[in-house]
Amino acid sequence: MSGTLDVVGIGPGSLSLMTPMAKIAISNADFVVGYKPYLDMISPLLGGKETSASGMTREVDRAAVAVDAALAGRNVAIISSGDAGMYAMGPLVYELLAQKEWKNDDTVKVTMIPGITAANACASLVGVPLGHDSCTISLSDLLTPMSLIEKRIEAAAVADFAITFYNPRSRRRTEQILTAQKILLKHRHADTPVAIVDNAYRPEQSIQISKLSEFTDCEFGMTAAVIVGNSQSYEFENLIITPRGYSKKYDLETGSIKAGQKRGRSLNEVQLEKVV
Amino acid sequence: MSGTLDVVGIGPGSLSLMTPMAKIAISNADFVVGYKPYLDMISPLLGGKETSASGMTREVDRAAVAVDAALAGRNVAIISSGDAGMYAMGPLVYELLAQKEWKNDDTVKVTMIPGITAANACASLVGVPLGHDSCTISLSDLLTPMSLIEKRIEAAAVADFAITFYNPRSRRRTEQILTAQKILLKHRHADTPVAIVDNAYRPEQSIQISKLSEFTDCEFGMTAAVIVGNSQSYEFENLIITPRGYSKKYDLETGSIKAGQKRGRSLNEVQLEKVV
Repeated sequence: MSGTLDVVGIGPGSLSLMTPMAKIAISNADFVVGYKPYLDMISPLLGGKETSASGMTREVDRAAVAVDAALAGRNVAIISSGDAGMYAMGPLVYELLAQKEWKNDDTVKVTMIPGITAANACASLVGVPLGHDSCTISLSDLLTPMSLIEKRIEAAAVADFAITFYNPRSRRRTEQILTAQKILLKHRHADTPVAIVDNAYRPEQSIQISKLSEFTDCEFGMTAAVIVGNSQSYEFENLIITPRGYSKKYDLETGSIKAGQKRGRSLNEVQLEKVV
Repeated sequence: MSGTLDVVGIGPGSLSLMTPMAKIAISNADFVVGYKPYLDMISPLLGGKETSASGMTREVDRAAVAVDAALAGRNVAIISSGDAGMYAMGPLVYELLAQKEWKNDDTVKVTMIPGITAANACASLVGVPLGHDSCTISLSDLLTPMSLIEKRIEAAAVADFAITFYNPRSRRRTEQILTAQKILLKHRHADTPVAIVDNAYRPEQSIQISKLSEFTDCEFGMTAAVIVGNSQSYEFENLIITPRGYSKKYDLETGSIKAGQKRGRSLNEVQLEKVV
């Protein structure tokens, strides 16, 4: 009697963006644990299986139910939307496993099954806002001091990361996104493009393209992701492009390499300054 | 005769981590464009289709072939490993579309199909190293000045992001990862856990768990991702846990809320300092 625990990222919500590996994990489980709205999203896969649903802020209970059942020998899947390891149930599951002195020796096999996280799902609906280096910052202060959240926003702004904000605001919590906007405006142009994608790939999906100086006037809540471009990002046909940098090295019209640059070699910055 | 262009993220490489939406896009295409090794990964899906393969550093040519074919009325899929919009073909495709004055009006429909990016794929094989805020930084200096790369590493270190380095080193390019290590060691403990995951979910997959002071001694190249934990990350059973922060607010053993904290309310930092 050796249990299994699959920690499954179901992706943004549409079954068409859920991987075969995730579907197989759920199919193999005899007990599926998750937040009620996420269980509803995968209900076509649950026929006849025992499930345990619980609400928001009940993550510790949910993880404990799953871990205890697996340690007791059951085949368990615990689901998260998006990726299972990023702002999801994965970290909590492993913290509980550590506390219960679980051994990584296949007696109780624990498997993380990755999924498409909100940053990638939401970005795909508005062009390519995350084309270069980027970061994700959760604005929820339920578990993270606001001082640390602000420090991260400041650093991301200084380093010119494109940024995806998770949990950007809730009915109770409306100040954080205004603070983020204020910090970013110190470092980025007011016209920096911003996308707000709510309920990506779900029936109630909504998309808003705005700019740094105005986006906080838009309506959105906890289920949205807010993506802020970097200094090179631009709006094009109601989409956001964050270039990877090919135009520094190549003539995009002809595909030929620019003078002073070499294919497969470091970008020649001296030459770049001459040309720009 | 209106063409279509699907920019498809195929995930890390295993068909079991490729979404149904990606498979359908490839199935609907009559012309599939990609880097040769990625076309090989999805060869079971290509039967009879015309393909165009090209090598590394030929991304501009590849994007142009796909864009021109779609504008000429063909049904085209262009593939990237991982996600299609993150260090991938997506940004280049949109830059070319902008240059060719494409209109986002369904005459030639362009669709981004997201995939599981290397950060999430690689993280899933080593526990939950990206459990909280994190960033991705490419160490390739082919298109990005090293000065900007260093600035981003410094900012990520200061802000305590978990970090996934893409393109960490190549045969020619070995200095960047040493520079990254040096910068990180100024801000993070030498024992900070580091994972090196090469060829995730491919037959030649390899996983190494190391620490910040030593990981550059490991063997790895361009196909690896290097994941560096944040200040709270710890190694457990040859995996890496980056906590989300539940233990600040909850007793993980009983699931009960700690004194001075409230479910669904901001973390009480004053109380936190008393307890810690």
